Amino acid sequence: MERISLAHGSGGRLSHELVNTILKKHFTNSYLDKMNDAAIVPGSPSIAVTTDSFVISPLFFKGGDIGKLAVCGTINDLAVSGAEAKFLTVGLIIEEGFLISDLEKIVASIAETASEAGVCVVAGDTKVVEKGNADGIFINTTGIGYVKNHTVDPAFIQSGDLILVTGTIGDHEIAVLSEREGLQFDTPVISDCAPLNGLIDEFFMQGVKCMRDPTRGGVGTTLNELARQAGVCIMIEEEKLPLQSGVEGACGMLGLDPLYLANEGKSLVVVSPEAAEDVLERMHRHPLGINAACIGKVLDNEEPGLVLLETVFGSKRIVPMLEGEHLPRIC
Amino acid sequence: MERISLAHGSGGRLSHELVNTILKKHFTNSYLDKMNDAAIVPGSPSIAVTTDSFVISPLFFKGGDIGKLAVCGTINDLAVSGAEAKFLTVGLIIEEGFLISDLEKIVASIAETASEAGVCVVAGDTKVVEKGNADGIFINTTGIGYVKNHTVDPAFIQSGDLILVTGTIGDHEIAVLSEREGLQFDTPVISDCAPLNGLIDEFFMQGVKCMRDPTRGGVGTTLNELARQAGVCIMIEEEKLPLQSGVEGACGMLGLDPLYLANEGKSLVVVSPEAAEDVLERMHRHPLGINAACIGKVLDNEEPGLVLLETVFGSKRIVPMLEGEHLPRIC
Repeated sequence: MERISLAHGSGGRLSHELVNTILKKHFTNSYLDKMNDAAIVPGSPSIAVTTDSFVISPLFFKGGDIGKLAVCGTINDLAVSGAEAKFLTVGLIIEEGFLISDLEKIVASIAETASEAGVCVVAGDTKVVEKGNADGIFINTTGIGYVKNHTVDPAFIQSGDLILVTGTIGDHEIAVLSEREGLQFDTPVISDCAPLNGLIDEFFMQGVKCMRDPTRGGVGTTLNELARQAGVCIMIEEEKLPLQSGVEGACGMLGLDPLYLANEGKSLVVVSPEAAEDVLERMHRHPLGINAACIGKVLDNEEPGLVLLETVFGSKRIVPMLEGEHLPRIC
Repeated sequence: MERISLAHGSGGRLSHELVNTILKKHFTNSYLDKMNDAAIVPGSPSIAVTTDSFVISPLFFKGGDIGKLAVCGTINDLAVSGAEAKFLTVGLIIEEGFLISDLEKIVASIAETASEAGVCVVAGDTKVVEKGNADGIFINTTGIGYVKNHTVDPAFIQSGDLILVTGTIGDHEIAVLSEREGLQFDTPVISDCAPLNGLIDEFFMQGVKCMRDPTRGGVGTTLNELARQAGVCIMIEEEKLPLQSGVEGACGMLGLDPLYLANEGKSLVVVSPEAAEDVLERMHRHPLGINAACIGKVLDNEEPGLVLLETVFGSKRIVPMLEGEHLPRIC
């Protein structure tokens, strides 16, 4: 059999065969192997929980695929919350007729990324819907982590704090866009899709007040969320935004604002001015942080909830949340 | 605006508006209200984790809807694993054009069922796909529970143990089937969709070896899983299977075997012979257990992994796992 049939989602013999041939090959650990209705795993006094569904199109793109993305997206939400990512659940919704070879590639990618990041896939579920009622495959991952000693929260943000970003922005969205539309750039853009827990371990210290990964909605929308939650005004400087040339070129050509482009391997980090240099240095030491930069600061005596941009020409403008939809199904 | 648009899944302004107008109204608690990338919740030394996606069609049926089902399905997986259901995550994948009023009905149903069952929705995610790339709405729920003192495991099953079921079988599948196909029965069949944690609390005691909820694949497939995992042979008696008359009639008319019909509010329970009477009595005391019955036992000296049925005529036949697909998208 080379394609997924409805019977693979029946809960009956073919469901078990799919689990035994494809899924068990890639996912094996003492929790999952029990094949009970729930996995029993060691806990911790305080745990972090996050969930995300992934509906990206196309499923395979430069720098990753939906499987890698589904792992990174959830691990990163745990990591920026100051938690050590430990366990992952994976829910697959597959369209009838989907190639089993593609499913296996995606499953292998989930397993590989989880293993690299040191997290364990402990529970899963597979549903199949009739042809035409889904688009290939959708994946939900839910992550559980142990909360670290040092906590982060937007409430800790205060005026004078600095805004760092761990690297170039917009890479993921431009990579997916170029894949989808068949665009060619002089410098090919590769998605930044990566698990951030290793990088964050490197610089997570006193003085780090808050972290957030600017995925859908981009840096612009994420900073708006932070400014509102913290009740502060944030100003960023256009000329300090790290952009790789391919992304800059694509934005110019297509009229896109890099502030709204989705990232899948970057974090915004709000730090106290005292800690900023040390944190930035630690970021630069890690392969995923070599392009880290300070892009702005939290202002005194300005309207709370506002995000401002100082343009390369020295003028200032308000950065609102993303309006409408840039590119559907970017993650 | 009365329908979901792609911009509701952008992560930008309309996503925030959807969260603020529809979701926050129904879901509010100290964990979720922080609106951070991950919720920080109290843990426990040993936690149970389970995940399920729900793609049922139709979304609304007699006795429930996809929202209620998504909560019950996951809570029940925790409950039958011997865990106290505590936290739930909810991931929504919505088709562009979906009625916001239907979304709100479903969200209200999730919130109401979770509240009844005493679990807290602590994290969520919403994605929107283009019209024609999903079928209305798909929901993933992931559940986290605290493991109770007394543990259950298929490995504890031994010959002589008895097989109980907490009530009539097949109600959910016949209710959905009749809804989908517009069938009318003399006695209307209502889905058994319900959270089982209250009932299980009532009878969870020494002597209860293993529990499992016979959802997709039904009692027949679930008993096969148990027999294989435990390495035992299970024999059930046809005349002891609790069936409501509407389900019996529908099975006769449509040629369906009730052993393969999905249930969403029932559990199979394997108990020691000493505890069986007490456990059954406790089941009968709870509104969800009034039709509980002993339906079979674990045999000595028979082929491990085998499930046998003693028919009403006294003959015996093997009960295999469900072959093919009964009814797609039953849950």
